[in-house]
Amino acid sequence: MMLASRLQMVQQRIAGQLQQHLQALQPADPRLAEAMQYGVLNGGKRLRPFLIYATCEALGGTTEAADAAAVAMEMVHSYSLVHDDLPAMDDDDLRRGKPTCHIAFDEATAILAGDGLLTAAFAVLADAPAQTDTQRLQLIRLLAQAAGAAGMVAGQNIDLGHVGKPMTLAQLETMHRYKTGALIRAAVLMGAACAPLAPAAATLQALTDYADAVGLAFQVWDDILDVEGDTAVLGKQQGSDLAHNKPTYPSLLGLEGARSKATELIDRAQQALLQVPGDTSLLAGLARYVINRDH
Amino acid sequence: MMLASRLQMVQQRIAGQLQQHLQALQPADPRLAEAMQYGVLNGGKRLRPFLIYATCEALGGTTEAADAAAVAMEMVHSYSLVHDDLPAMDDDDLRRGKPTCHIAFDEATAILAGDGLLTAAFAVLADAPAQTDTQRLQLIRLLAQAAGAAGMVAGQNIDLGHVGKPMTLAQLETMHRYKTGALIRAAVLMGAACAPLAPAAATLQALTDYADAVGLAFQVWDDILDVEGDTAVLGKQQGSDLAHNKPTYPSLLGLEGARSKATELIDRAQQALLQVPGDTSLLAGLARYVINRDH
Repeated sequence: MMLASRLQMVQQRIAGQLQQHLQALQPADPRLAEAMQYGVLNGGKRLRPFLIYATCEALGGTTEAADAAAVAMEMVHSYSLVHDDLPAMDDDDLRRGKPTCHIAFDEATAILAGDGLLTAAFAVLADAPAQTDTQRLQLIRLLAQAAGAAGMVAGQNIDLGHVGKPMTLAQLETMHRYKTGALIRAAVLMGAACAPLAPAAATLQALTDYADAVGLAFQVWDDILDVEGDTAVLGKQQGSDLAHNKPTYPSLLGLEGARSKATELIDRAQQALLQVPGDTSLLAGLARYVINRDH
Repeated sequence: MMLASRLQMVQQRIAGQLQQHLQALQPADPRLAEAMQYGVLNGGKRLRPFLIYATCEALGGTTEAADAAAVAMEMVHSYSLVHDDLPAMDDDDLRRGKPTCHIAFDEATAILAGDGLLTAAFAVLADAPAQTDTQRLQLIRLLAQAAGAAGMVAGQNIDLGHVGKPMTLAQLETMHRYKTGALIRAAVLMGAACAPLAPAAATLQALTDYADAVGLAFQVWDDILDVEGDTAVLGKQQGSDLAHNKPTYPSLLGLEGARSKATELIDRAQQALLQVPGDTSLLAGLARYVINRDH
């Protein structure tokens, strides 16, 4: 399958890029450097880098032009996982079958490694080699807006504030829009910002609609996998949402309702792509993958 | 005293600026917004903003030109205090006589508030109204370099790795150079970057020498106050370094030796200022203040 091989290519490329950038940082403490590397070279799917590369290329940019944005994005995504796994937050011991950062090292090192990765992301963007100063600042704005108190960090706090409490469908959607949707939208917009020419407003709007639909479908499908998936394939405990009394799409809509919702969202994402000029086949393929994956 | 009134002016100005910027962020979660505000409006001395304003003005810039850099710097300094106070780090319940952020809120909120402040600092610099794009990126580079794994965050990890272990004078100095020195140096260089004309290399070197000497003197004096100070005036427990078995300048050099060291460093700072064109009286005043303060 074209998408699978492309995803693998992104995974390999970003791993090399991340290692290069972590070395270039010249961390002043070897244990901290090790924890940052552990946190970021984590066997993740690299969906956000995939979206950055695929969007940049759909709009006429090269792969190289999107490297710095992809590295910065994955540093921010990885830092958020390291902090979310902490005992004071989700208190997770395992991520993708491996000990989480604070288990492999210790809590203080995990907090500081996350802080270091977040800081490094902005250093990477400030020196993005293929971009003009205006583009670099645009990338920094997009990432800071999506990752900060108006985006991801707020989503995580909203999530933690609702543990064990009921949530309406609207509240669940708001929480996901901030917690994961903001960064997925930023990935697509950062990919567009790496393209040689600034895209038309209608193109940016279509890409935003695509990203928002894919981001939410991703969450709905995650909730479905938590009910139906296989613990060994998932790399985390199946049924953990129910065990933690977390509100989910299947719990609010039923399994069939959740499946319909995911399919509708992906249809919406594909519709949005019709408004984007260029070859959007990779973006379309990713949308299909999101609701066909088993982990 | 001129310095005291100027310090007060900076404290008032930065408090207003920080509040404006936190509102402009439009945080998506009120509790998170409150914790960020609590973490940053903390009654601090605002020495780093003072250094930014004083350097910018010595080099011919206006106060307004340095506002964004001062705000971003204080957001980063405040986030570092919020995270350093966490149970997994220094485990402090009080800061300047008030409950620390994780005590006033909770641990998860404190971690996220710190993350939000760090992220916001880069958003503020990316939109710095008085700067060109080149200057904005220069400010972002200086701050990211000083705050990240090659600077402050590494220093905190080195510090935590030495709790209860002996340290040589050279190790103690290295730890301080990263943990607090890097940000103090960045404050001076960011102030210079806000000035209308790029300073000569010799001026930047002199400012760096000034900042490094003042930063270290600040730490030496802190260690002396921990031995000689008054708990009520300090806003923290006198003698806590000894109680925590922390290596300090008085423990390595004796009280008189530490006092001589602080005086030497401030002499060096004053010497460096002779190479800086413009009115450096505020910078000179701050150097004297650092080893004459009682808290």
